[in-house]
Amino acid sequence: MIRVGIVGAAGYIGGELLRLLIGHPEAEVAAATSRSLRGRPVDGVHPNLRGRAGLRFCGEDQLDYYDVLFLATPHRQTMRRMPEFLGMATTVIDLSGDFRLRDPGAYEYYYGVAHEATELLDTFVPGLPEFHRDRLRAADRISVPGCMATAGLLSLVPLAEAGLIEESVTVDARTGSSGSGARVGPENSHAERSGALRVFAPTKHRHEAEIAQATGLGVTMTATGVEAVRGVQLLGRARLAEGVGELDIRSAYRSRFAGEPFVRVVAHRRGLHRFPDAKIVSGSNFCDVGFAMEDGATHVTVIAALDNLVKGGAGNAVQCMNVRFDMPEDRGLEFTGLHPN
Amino acid sequence: MIRVGIVGAAGYIGGELLRLLIGHPEAEVAAATSRSLRGRPVDGVHPNLRGRAGLRFCGEDQLDYYDVLFLATPHRQTMRRMPEFLGMATTVIDLSGDFRLRDPGAYEYYYGVAHEATELLDTFVPGLPEFHRDRLRAADRISVPGCMATAGLLSLVPLAEAGLIEESVTVDARTGSSGSGARVGPENSHAERSGALRVFAPTKHRHEAEIAQATGLGVTMTATGVEAVRGVQLLGRARLAEGVGELDIRSAYRSRFAGEPFVRVVAHRRGLHRFPDAKIVSGSNFCDVGFAMEDGATHVTVIAALDNLVKGGAGNAVQCMNVRFDMPEDRGLEFTGLHPN
Amino acid sequence: MIRVGIVGAAGYIGGELLRLLIGHPEAEVAAATSRSLRGRPVDGVHPNLRGRAGLRFCGEDQLDYYDVLFLATPHRQTMRRMPEFLGMATTVIDLSGDFRLRDPGAYEYYYGVAHEATELLDTFVPGLPEFHRDRLRAADRISVPGCMATAGLLSLVPLAEAGLIEESVTVDARTGSSGSGARVGPENSHAERSGALRVFAPTKHRHEAEIAQATGLGVTMTATGVEAVRGVQLLGRARLAEGVGELDIRSAYRSRFAGEPFVRVVAHRRGLHRFPDAKIVSGSNFCDVGFAMEDGATHVTVIAALDNLVKGGAGNAVQCMNVRFDMPEDRGLEFTGLHPN
Amino acid sequence: MIRVGIVGAAGYIGGELLRLLIGHPEAEVAAATSRSLRGRPVDGVHPNLRGRAGLRFCGEDQLDYYDVLFLATPHRQTMRRMPEFLGMATTVIDLSGDFRLRDPGAYEYYYGVAHEATELLDTFVPGLPEFHRDRLRAADRISVPGCMATAGLLSLVPLAEAGLIEESVTVDARTGSSGSGARVGPENSHAERSGALRVFAPTKHRHEAEIAQATGLGVTMTATGVEAVRGVQLLGRARLAEGVGELDIRSAYRSRFAGEPFVRVVAHRRGLHRFPDAKIVSGSNFCDVGFAMEDGATHVTVIAALDNLVKGGAGNAVQCMNVRFDMPEDRGLEFTGLHPN
Repeated sequence: MIRVGIVGAAGYIGGELLRLLIGHPEAEVAAATSRSLRGRPVDGVHPNLRGRAGLRFCGEDQLDYYDVLFLATPHRQTMRRMPEFLGMATTVIDLSGDFRLRDPGAYEYYYGVAHEATELLDTFVPGLPEFHRDRLRAADRISVPGCMATAGLLSLVPLAEAGLIEESVTVDARTGSSGSGARVGPENSHAERSGALRVFAPTKHRHEAEIAQATGLGVTMTATGVEAVRGVQLLGRARLAEGVGELDIRSAYRSRFAGEPFVRVVAHRRGLHRFPDAKIVSGSNFCDVGFAMEDGATHVTVIAALDNLVKGGAGNAVQCMNVRFDMPEDRGLEFTGLHPN
Repeated sequence: MIRVGIVGAAGYIGGELLRLLIGHPEAEVAAATSRSLRGRPVDGVHPNLRGRAGLRFCGEDQLDYYDVLFLATPHRQTMRRMPEFLGMATTVIDLSGDFRLRDPGAYEYYYGVAHEATELLDTFVPGLPEFHRDRLRAADRISVPGCMATAGLLSLVPLAEAGLIEESVTVDARTGSSGSGARVGPENSHAERSGALRVFAPTKHRHEAEIAQATGLGVTMTATGVEAVRGVQLLGRARLAEGVGELDIRSAYRSRFAGEPFVRVVAHRRGLHRFPDAKIVSGSNFCDVGFAMEDGATHVTVIAALDNLVKGGAGNAVQCMNVRFDMPEDRGLEFTGLHPN
Repeated sequence: MIRVGIVGAAGYIGGELLRLLIGHPEAEVAAATSRSLRGRPVDGVHPNLRGRAGLRFCGEDQLDYYDVLFLATPHRQTMRRMPEFLGMATTVIDLSGDFRLRDPGAYEYYYGVAHEATELLDTFVPGLPEFHRDRLRAADRISVPGCMATAGLLSLVPLAEAGLIEESVTVDARTGSSGSGARVGPENSHAERSGALRVFAPTKHRHEAEIAQATGLGVTMTATGVEAVRGVQLLGRARLAEGVGELDIRSAYRSRFAGEPFVRVVAHRRGLHRFPDAKIVSGSNFCDVGFAMEDGATHVTVIAALDNLVKGGAGNAVQCMNVRFDMPEDRGLEFTGLHPN
Repeated sequence: MIRVGIVGAAGYIGGELLRLLIGHPEAEVAAATSRSLRGRPVDGVHPNLRGRAGLRFCGEDQLDYYDVLFLATPHRQTMRRMPEFLGMATTVIDLSGDFRLRDPGAYEYYYGVAHEATELLDTFVPGLPEFHRDRLRAADRISVPGCMATAGLLSLVPLAEAGLIEESVTVDARTGSSGSGARVGPENSHAERSGALRVFAPTKHRHEAEIAQATGLGVTMTATGVEAVRGVQLLGRARLAEGVGELDIRSAYRSRFAGEPFVRVVAHRRGLHRFPDAKIVSGSNFCDVGFAMEDGATHVTVIAALDNLVKGGAGNAVQCMNVRFDMPEDRGLEFTGLHPN
């Protein structure tokens, strides 16, 4: 049994970690912290856990030592407290943004503050099993990518690494309201947010930097809030390298993702469900990846969809834990998603 | 030109008053107050008014004297300040709950505080032209009913007054998120509220008291938040008086609402749009009223739908102003609603 | 391993049976029929099953013999073919409406056609483990209740049986669009159905008869389509027997549902999630049951919520199979639901 | 009084023409055709028109001669019957796609069939007053652009004409479900379409050709269906010409749209409503246009939003009629849109 602690368990990512880990047959949630809800049952804020968890939130001062400590803590705060967290567990899996970018300059540009733990940056392994599985088997410091970044990495890195796309890519990301967390404010109120198509980050979204870092391409990303609670869908447009055709793209995805438990290539000529749609993967750990191009086209459009709280966050983190502790990768992550939904 | 002032113009009811009055050919919005947004353009918080209004919010201390003063102010605060407001305008149209119930005991039971201006209670005329048109022509103190109450009154009073229903009625009201105003809180956050079926008032909703007061019947009302921004739909179930049949009900509605510009009787045997649906009347000043019963039934189900911000609030208030100032009742209220929507 | 067949596997209930049974560790889906999609992969219409099922639809003529045959077939057709189905499996679990009502007269009144297999009516056990567990352990003909009926039965039967409520009950049911199945028509089109509050059955909904049959009370039910794909929420209002108070109601539910894996009593004084909400149980096999009443009230309001395709259909059917084949009742039904969602 | 006829009045564009023209003080709807609903009241399928229109659908054989004939007819059918239509009215305003592209080769590429009335192509004036007002004053053959095209033209043409952007542009368009009309099919069913992010045209959307034709740029467009009934939002990304900065872009829009009644430039540094959002303009004839770029950027992102049935169709057509018949351009189009909505 793996003994886990969750720091910041009252938020949406924290709640999703609770849901997945309570249902995980080889994990035991030994501690779930919340500053404001200390002592209160976790199912008060996570009502889906009613009857499934007798657990109560504890304070951070009550933490001791765990096999795995998941950090669902805000950026800035996370880097400041990281040395402390590293002493509390064999393996730390960080879901904040603080250890995703290796370049402190990029961090400062995108987050607006200087990085305060630059010496630790290189010690974290990116928490994306599809690309870093071997390193993750032995990793004790894992930094899970951002939700839109994960969609971008899974759809763009295979093409970039194979040299099939060139120079620069434009990325159009859409996200549901849970992506901004359980914070309260006018921007999140139902009346304002319902049905909105809100371009909340026309430029400089932080996940843009992660995609640029991993692909080595210039990335121009725009992020729009759409009507959904969960879900990220990302469209990327890239210039094809000389002579690259549809079959090359399809083969690159197929070979890269052969045997992957959580990536499905979805690119059909017809039908209602031709391309990745966040609606289909909601609640599951899948990231569907697809693409479209006309014959003789100079550009390809790639499409990826995932649930921001699962493959874009808590599910991906649990998958990393499974890799790290040598368990079947889909343990605790078997839920397929619902249709219709 | 009627010179109007709006107190509390930054909220949703205030914004709707602005929308309707700016578009009203015989009204001039001379003042729109907001404590927190004084000096700021009104289209900052009401972006639909961009390009239609150069208006800025003013402070309440900048108010002078108006033909009509609309109060979109919170309850309690409104009754305390009413003497002051009454000195600022020929006609005061109050959209708060403070002057809807004539019985101070009922007010205290439903609002949880004692009424502080009981001497004024009898001086207000209910702001529902369908039932109080003659008094409204000369009224200078008008209290607009609550949104669910308006739906309840228009569907139940005609039957109660005609003696077609008896004793007690159960009311099931459903409402969109704008009904709780522009307040910010976890209960209004998109992630929590989206798709919810939230029974937020299983008993003791304040609008229950208004329906009971006007019908003289016992009323048991339940209110549920449903997925919508605007809209109220109300179902009422009442025991029929001895010998009452479908034709009696239909005739009662038809005769009561003949010539009414904003009440439509919608009760068809078939079709997609057989009964009142809040979706159809969104943005308009209509309240659709319908009913259903089987042959030989002992009970009738009445159904009403309106837009809580229009016929359930600001539109109804403007209709009252039109009556009071002897204008065509639909002046400024011509919008028919959208389909599909 | 239990060998199962599914007749009518291309619809929404059929797809949900596939989802649950493919994930069930002790079941093997040996056949899934579709007349129009014979030979096509099941994940073409059920895209959530991509990568989880190599299965293809077969024709009904290809069926042989199964441990369990699930019928997700239309009413009328089901009763006509029932003798044939009964020869194809040890246990038949019927999800159609044809064997829910024991009284052929009631069937004819509510379904508009005469029952054609009246001799079989008494041989079916109601597929609701909470009330018929003992009989289900040995049942080979099981009729799963309707989705709204299940919500009604779980919230009303405990009170009726204990003599806490009397005479008649009014029921207000709300349902998502998946309740009308995968049929195509203007009434189901997104533009018409989105955001609708459509009273599609003001009287005579078929599930009303099931609630009346089980409670022995007079039931007047209204059904409204609300904005949701999945989900049923039901409000019932009933007159309390002499002297019954809140504690009696709470005790009745508590004792009746003690140890039940899929019924949770949800009735809190405060908080965002005070009462059952279909949003919270979406995808899960839970039916949440709650109630509200004022001190000294003459009536109680009961509230129940479930996912119409799970506890209101396929999940309940799988739970019955688990009971019948002596497996843990939650086998294959562990998914807790998502929050936020 | 302008006497108008509408061919194809039972669809969504037809219904919107009815709504706008019935409310237009200087127009009289003399005929509204529907093949399948001949003789039936128009408010049967357009329930928002209840009480506002006694009108019934007529057959096309009942048409005579009109000042303006609006064509809300399918493509292909429209070009075949155009000679006939041209004989029925002084001015024909076509909302189909058949006369939008001047190049028959482009038509064939995008529509998949050869154009059958190529001799008429040059006789149509594009129905976009912002760019063709002078020609429209005397035009008797007007072809209204596609909904996404209108958003693309208004946001991209001002920059292309001023030489501020170069070469090629990528366009990401999002649309609500009413864009595919009142057709019925699985792709439009609520359960499938609700909450979807469906990339239904990853390449070769027909409106792409209109944007390319008007801007002279290479255009690569992707169209995604999002959760909404009404609304189009379009993001365009273009390379800036040498030395072009934010001020140049802003000035180009400002000067191009100065005095335009229905185009608002929306590009703020902060606030909830920084950029064009389809939610805000729903029901109105506005097209909001905005943009974003970082200092020193090589690319600009333009953003436009409109209601596909209004400024993207029927409203724009009525605006053209107003221009043609020398009326104030906003006559009948005064509705500002709702907030919140």
